[in-house]
Amino acid sequence: MDLTETFVGRQDIFDGRIVKLHVDTVTLPDGNTALREIIDHPGGVGILAIDDEDRVFMVQQYRYAFAQAMWEIPAGKREAGEEPLVTAKRELQEEVGVTAERWLPMGELIPSPGCYAERLYLFMARGLTMGDTHPDDDEFLTVSRVPFTELSQACLSGEIQDAKTVVAVLKAKAMLGR
Amino acid sequence: MDLTETFVGRQDIFDGRIVKLHVDTVTLPDGNTALREIIDHPGGVGILAIDDEDRVFMVQQYRYAFAQAMWEIPAGKREAGEEPLVTAKRELQEEVGVTAERWLPMGELIPSPGCYAERLYLFMARGLTMGDTHPDDDEFLTVSRVPFTELSQACLSGEIQDAKTVVAVLKAKAMLGR
Repeated sequence: MDLTETFVGRQDIFDGRIVKLHVDTVTLPDGNTALREIIDHPGGVGILAIDDEDRVFMVQQYRYAFAQAMWEIPAGKREAGEEPLVTAKRELQEEVGVTAERWLPMGELIPSPGCYAERLYLFMARGLTMGDTHPDDDEFLTVSRVPFTELSQACLSGEIQDAKTVVAVLKAKAMLGR
Repeated sequence: MDLTETFVGRQDIFDGRIVKLHVDTVTLPDGNTALREIIDHPGGVGILAIDDEDRVFMVQQYRYAFAQAMWEIPAGKREAGEEPLVTAKRELQEEVGVTAERWLPMGELIPSPGCYAERLYLFMARGLTMGDTHPDDDEFLTVSRVPFTELSQACLSGEIQDAKTVVAVLKAKAMLGR
């Protein structure tokens, strides 16, 4: 069955600092029409940075949408046209002050395919060197290093709920045989 | 460090069929103000339904935001005030026509904590019985059963990129020792 939905028309709703929102009219496979609420997002990266003692750099930041501070792997949004690896190197340096000798792609992640057009690129960073952090002006972070086994337990138990963090950690757990 | 951001004011932008969008002004930890673009979403469930031959029910649907048909675990949005388990039972029945004897909570998932206020509840369903499907009117699905080991490989390789699917499968892989 061809499941394709075809563009008919668009209503632009919002053009913000991070997201845009538009409502498209589409033709469904049965010929009827439907509305699709789509949020555009620049996409970004998530970085699983593991040091030589098997500890993972984690950042805690306040997530206003959930009214809580959350622990996550370092991450950030892509600038327009930027290669994901360039974003990843910049964000790791800015958020946790770390540079890495080796960068391994860990695949792409679509956090929520229904309405939210965000795509993330995941990387593993190894061979780490510490430096200074340079967070954005409106970015307040706490940085910590967590043993990999402790972190993977926190992902499996549901204590950590951030999708990019859980995916990166559990992929690494399978790939590294931990 | 207290990372809390405090509500100052709200601009409501959009109230749609699925999502709402508002822009809040917040006070940052340093006393400055910033804007937070927040998309409200009812949240939902994802169901890893594994049959007695270790095959997982998967649904393929067109994801307009990514202009592609994607294979995902069955999932759906919560009705207002609905218990996640009730949503999960309904969606599994509607999307793939399956009822289950045993339901195991697999934790919560926050797909994208920055702007998108969606929270998913993941479940494993076992002891499955086939029936008829009842998809929503504007929902066009292809259903398939995929061997668990094949699916977990597709999650690890990056072939499957849907966050809830990757998280549910890799959690199950670790929990079941596959």
